[in-house]
Amino acid sequence: MTGWVAVAGLGPGDDALITPQAQSALAEATDVVGYGPYVARVAPRPGLVLHPSDNRVELERAAHALDMAAAGRRVVVVSSGDPGVFAMAAALFEALETRADADALDIRILPGITAMLAAAARAGAPLGHDFAAINLSDNLKPFAEVERRLRHAARGGFAMAFYNPRSKARPHQFARVLEILREDCTPDRLVIFARAVSTPDEALRTVTLAEATPEMADMRTVVIVGSEATRRVGRWVYTPRSVP
Amino acid sequence: MTGWVAVAGLGPGDDALITPQAQSALAEATDVVGYGPYVARVAPRPGLVLHPSDNRVELERAAHALDMAAAGRRVVVVSSGDPGVFAMAAALFEALETRADADALDIRILPGITAMLAAAARAGAPLGHDFAAINLSDNLKPFAEVERRLRHAARGGFAMAFYNPRSKARPHQFARVLEILREDCTPDRLVIFARAVSTPDEALRTVTLAEATPEMADMRTVVIVGSEATRRVGRWVYTPRSVP
Repeated sequence: MTGWVAVAGLGPGDDALITPQAQSALAEATDVVGYGPYVARVAPRPGLVLHPSDNRVELERAAHALDMAAAGRRVVVVSSGDPGVFAMAAALFEALETRADADALDIRILPGITAMLAAAARAGAPLGHDFAAINLSDNLKPFAEVERRLRHAARGGFAMAFYNPRSKARPHQFARVLEILREDCTPDRLVIFARAVSTPDEALRTVTLAEATPEMADMRTVVIVGSEATRRVGRWVYTPRSVP
Repeated sequence: MTGWVAVAGLGPGDDALITPQAQSALAEATDVVGYGPYVARVAPRPGLVLHPSDNRVELERAAHALDMAAAGRRVVVVSSGDPGVFAMAAALFEALETRADADALDIRILPGITAMLAAAARAGAPLGHDFAAINLSDNLKPFAEVERRLRHAARGGFAMAFYNPRSKARPHQFARVLEILREDCTPDRLVIFARAVSTPDEALRTVTLAEATPEMADMRTVVIVGSEATRRVGRWVYTPRSVP
């Protein structure tokens, strides 16, 4: 038996946004590994072993998946969104660094609909021109690095998409992010708070930077900040393709 | 009959990367509008009218789709990748600006797997930390604006994904992009040239910035430039999740 590990993105929540490629991998799998709520999205069936785990054990989870693949199992590591965007693919390669069989293992990364693309689609097309994706969590990087990226994204004229804007452990940080943005952007800059897009809990709210408050974001929110060109048409928000 | 227009992303090329949501819209459509090669990806069937058009007529195409939806047709505008990333969604909203019925029309944007995510998945996880997406075409913006964004992305520590790196009309421009990057990045920076990912013409090549040449990109290539943290493990390229 030849084992493999596929790191698959399940998209933002709606099963209609899971690619057939990811579904095929799940159909062939012997084992599914991932954060509990994501593993819960996979339908149980005979012959499939589900391995839900806690948050913040990404490296252990990745090592477990690689071990099982090396032992001949067919393993899918599930991420929400796209596995390559602030998700499990990077953790898998970090775990791979410690192994002598790195190039002998059959590894596949299966892309998915990442949260910012689902959020942008619901809002209109706010990422229709150049944009930057920034993880606001300071679990794995100093906040000074977050600030550096925010300032360059703002001064470079990019729209921005923020992942992990706010958590219980860092309640004041997103307030600081809004302060930084206000130093480099005008008060009429459009800000979209997109919560749990494509799930029953979906909520979408567009305000100006002047109106934005930290409470508008929680752990299930992606925040999109328009560029200076981003505008409204009817109920939609979009960034024109051309720069004059 | 109630008309609607959906702008759907067909992903990078492989039908296994088209979401069920996009397939459902195509199954319900009376009309499919888009650039010829993308419309050609939709299977003909009785009752479905295909409207292929040339490149660079995005606004006319969008206006045509809106007109048909207003007249009661069920219209899918097809894009490759994700319609919200350098594709048809922004053009649709630009066309919507000229209409009095903007909020009366039933419009849906259906996200897709954009080229940079498919390319990143094939390479490993080079976009596993903060990154910027930049359209290098100067059709719709001055090259000075491209240069401004490149410099801020480099100085902000972002990985980068470039769309439309090179065309026949602008053969020298990508050479200038590489020159700009060399001013702000060290020669060992990893650069991935990902051509036509998920199609039979797929080709993937990873070099250092010192080794990169303009001829490595063509119109079907997405270029991913790693951050300073981006590294190799075995045959893979990835950006670690943590910044020390």
